[in-house]
Amino acid sequence: MNAIKELREYFEEIQHLNYIQALLGWDQEVNMQNYKSLEGRSKQVALMEKLVHRRITSKKVGSLINQAQKLDNLNIIERAMLREITREYNHAIKLPEKLVTEIAETSILASKEWREARQKSDFSIFQKILEKTVELQIEKAEKLETHPDLYSTLIDLYEPSNDPPYDWIANIFNSIKPKLIAFVKMLNSSTDIPDDSVLKKNYDPDKQFKLSSEIMKKLNFDFGYGRQDKVTHPFTTKLAPLDTRITTRTTEPFPDCITSTIHECGHALYEMGIRKELHDTLLCSGTSFGIHESQSRMWENFVGRSKEFWIYWYPTFQKYFPNNLKDCPLEEFHRAINTVQPSFIRVNADEVTYGLHIILRFEMEKDLIEGRIQVNELPEVWNNKFEEILGIVPPNDAQGVLQDVHWSGGLLGYFPTYFLGNLYAAQIYSHALKLNPNLPEDYKKGNFSNLLIYLRENIHQHGGIYKANELIRRVTGEDLNSDYFLRYIEEKFKPIYRL
Amino acid sequence: MNAIKELREYFEEIQHLNYIQALLGWDQEVNMQNYKSLEGRSKQVALMEKLVHRRITSKKVGSLINQAQKLDNLNIIERAMLREITREYNHAIKLPEKLVTEIAETSILASKEWREARQKSDFSIFQKILEKTVELQIEKAEKLETHPDLYSTLIDLYEPSNDPPYDWIANIFNSIKPKLIAFVKMLNSSTDIPDDSVLKKNYDPDKQFKLSSEIMKKLNFDFGYGRQDKVTHPFTTKLAPLDTRITTRTTEPFPDCITSTIHECGHALYEMGIRKELHDTLLCSGTSFGIHESQSRMWENFVGRSKEFWIYWYPTFQKYFPNNLKDCPLEEFHRAINTVQPSFIRVNADEVTYGLHIILRFEMEKDLIEGRIQVNELPEVWNNKFEEILGIVPPNDAQGVLQDVHWSGGLLGYFPTYFLGNLYAAQIYSHALKLNPNLPEDYKKGNFSNLLIYLRENIHQHGGIYKANELIRRVTGEDLNSDYFLRYIEEKFKPIYRL
Repeated sequence: MNAIKELREYFEEIQHLNYIQALLGWDQEVNMQNYKSLEGRSKQVALMEKLVHRRITSKKVGSLINQAQKLDNLNIIERAMLREITREYNHAIKLPEKLVTEIAETSILASKEWREARQKSDFSIFQKILEKTVELQIEKAEKLETHPDLYSTLIDLYEPSNDPPYDWIANIFNSIKPKLIAFVKMLNSSTDIPDDSVLKKNYDPDKQFKLSSEIMKKLNFDFGYGRQDKVTHPFTTKLAPLDTRITTRTTEPFPDCITSTIHECGHALYEMGIRKELHDTLLCSGTSFGIHESQSRMWENFVGRSKEFWIYWYPTFQKYFPNNLKDCPLEEFHRAINTVQPSFIRVNADEVTYGLHIILRFEMEKDLIEGRIQVNELPEVWNNKFEEILGIVPPNDAQGVLQDVHWSGGLLGYFPTYFLGNLYAAQIYSHALKLNPNLPEDYKKGNFSNLLIYLRENIHQHGGIYKANELIRRVTGEDLNSDYFLRYIEEKFKPIYRL
Repeated sequence: MNAIKELREYFEEIQHLNYIQALLGWDQEVNMQNYKSLEGRSKQVALMEKLVHRRITSKKVGSLINQAQKLDNLNIIERAMLREITREYNHAIKLPEKLVTEIAETSILASKEWREARQKSDFSIFQKILEKTVELQIEKAEKLETHPDLYSTLIDLYEPSNDPPYDWIANIFNSIKPKLIAFVKMLNSSTDIPDDSVLKKNYDPDKQFKLSSEIMKKLNFDFGYGRQDKVTHPFTTKLAPLDTRITTRTTEPFPDCITSTIHECGHALYEMGIRKELHDTLLCSGTSFGIHESQSRMWENFVGRSKEFWIYWYPTFQKYFPNNLKDCPLEEFHRAINTVQPSFIRVNADEVTYGLHIILRFEMEKDLIEGRIQVNELPEVWNNKFEEILGIVPPNDAQGVLQDVHWSGGLLGYFPTYFLGNLYAAQIYSHALKLNPNLPEDYKKGNFSNLLIYLRENIHQHGGIYKANELIRRVTGEDLNSDYFLRYIEEKFKPIYRL
């Protein structure tokens, strides 16, 4: 057996362990929300982290990588596999086992304290363990040293790039930030802004959930290879090559249950579409968090908030909620769900202000990592920055600095990938429309498979073979270009705002 | 650190892996029933089996056991721990890794085929993989060789004993079998047998589930350390020292949902009551499957089918199901749920015929393991034996040989523990009543904690410290004695049958 085949086999076991780790996480989120003790689970997770870490850092892997790199007849998949294995190995050998397990254990306990803090809107409950979490992430970045600056090193874990990710992303975000702020103002200067009062009525949670499942089926989510469950914070996870699960909440204002389900379904379709040859390898997942988010946001917004989507679905919704919707014409409903307005909660933000929520977190994380902000100052800095960028001040920390789960999990550097996802989505969707100009017409008839076919061919099947920048060039012929997104929001929202 | 402390620490990790394995199983049963592929899960389970097996069989364990056995100052807990670790080690070193993982993988695939076979009532779908399962179990027994006969070796995995378990159990079963058969006949010779037509009405599944949860709370199941979920085959499992989960079904005739929930709750209360010192050790679970079953059957039958229990609960049930129950007096309802009658399905059997279902399986398993029956003959042998012992013939294999999940999981030798559980229960409950004659009076007022306090003190807290035979002697002052059970059914059912 040659070195690359040996590596493939060796990493299959590591993938199984990763999937088991994913089940531990899924179960904790879905099934353990009322638990008084997460002690046992936290030990289990730490143990799995340790087992994975030991396997990746074994001398055998180092020597197989050396041998494999000398092979001159690797095919594209093998070359990509070796690249990812090398990356994982180079990361892991720099991180002591103690740090790895400490991060895992801390994140489980921190998620519990964050939950309580958010519920009571009391940052002090969360502060101490967040301080530890940030310290651990800084230590991790110092050890990894993938890029000259710590924050770039952390972002690189989620959105790898050759150039320091911070510089690359800051460039884009800095140029787009004033344009977004100006565009929001411009829209709201309209004399005919949408009326979203219809969304503030009462929508039965069970009916919402049922409808969200119906939509998933129509979008080709295969319930023979996955599930949909209820949680407080929606997410998608993969527990085996043929087991992708999404979660949905029904607690937020309508139509959040619907749009967030479509969002997670977009993630799931990506994972479900990866070709069989890549199963049980490191390539059997989306290639970067930004590209992943492009898939979820494309389905959620470009499709799920389009007029054509609702031409098909609105009659069904009117049947489910006759009292709420019977007097609201489709046109008005579509305008309502596309209201652009500064608001406190990122996950409920519209397509235009969403990026500003991310830019705020991006700027804060940079300062936090580099010591210019201390953890105890976060609530104040958050509120000040929020006013500066979005023009409003959160009434409390639950709707401010405590709203997101990410920091409790140690996910510093993750947020920027969310906005990148929107930018990637605009560019890819524009290309999809160029090849298939009839896509929106298909939606009107409840046919969503032509977009899926396009995405499977161009994005999904490849899994992690091509890195994000390579993939976007292969698919669209150019590097990431935020003009597509700016053009998209202009063309979409000006008519909605009758401008 | 001395050898016993080192062993304890070493086996803590093994316990975490066992708990993770339990989560994989729980999730498969609860969440993957509609899955088209269990391939990924089966690889994960096999990997975990392998990891546990490698850890247990490491040379380090053998040498630590040797050192620990020379220590002369071990306390009771340490001595029991060493006993269990030695047992696990002695088992594991006799079993090749290949066999262990093959058994794990086969059981997952077999459970899928059994499910299909039962649904279609077609034994041939299940036959081939059952043949393999039986072969693997025979191979396992040959390797383990704990007792001179193979079946005893298999039973010993679930109900360990110094004497060959087959002989010990056959002795009890052979003596009780004719008495049970005679007693069933005698009851049914009554001219005033209970009328159970009220149970054949339609009971809303959601209401049943809700009621079952209410009862669990009243029985002191702590939902902060466990869950109740819906499945097709109820079971209890433990995913951490403080995470015990039961499952419930609402598909069977009323009041199966209620009684089987109480049953599983009884298992769970045992696991929830184990003292903290034993957490994360091999002693942190019930001491044998028979003793475990004594706890579930005691709550299900001795409490949950008693008149006093229903004096408290029946008004609530009448409120939930007014149309079905308003005209049925408590007395008649209590008689109805205590109807004694030969029936096809073990899990729905009454307290008297239940043992006969087990004796049938016990006799068949013995012959199967020793080659006197071939797998393809099982349906015919089942039906013949059923007629011989219970006097009726199953109309199809779904209601006959295919009804139980156990064989698909390779659990040969497990069934006898179910009936032993009833016998243990009678003996322990009789002792509990001697110390607390007011227990039944407590039930009338909805107070079930005095029995739990007795069980916690005498059984639960000890976990696996005392072996089953030692425990029953410590608690009741004598060895297992089936007279208690015979006396119990006589005293209970004669009045119900007005004899």
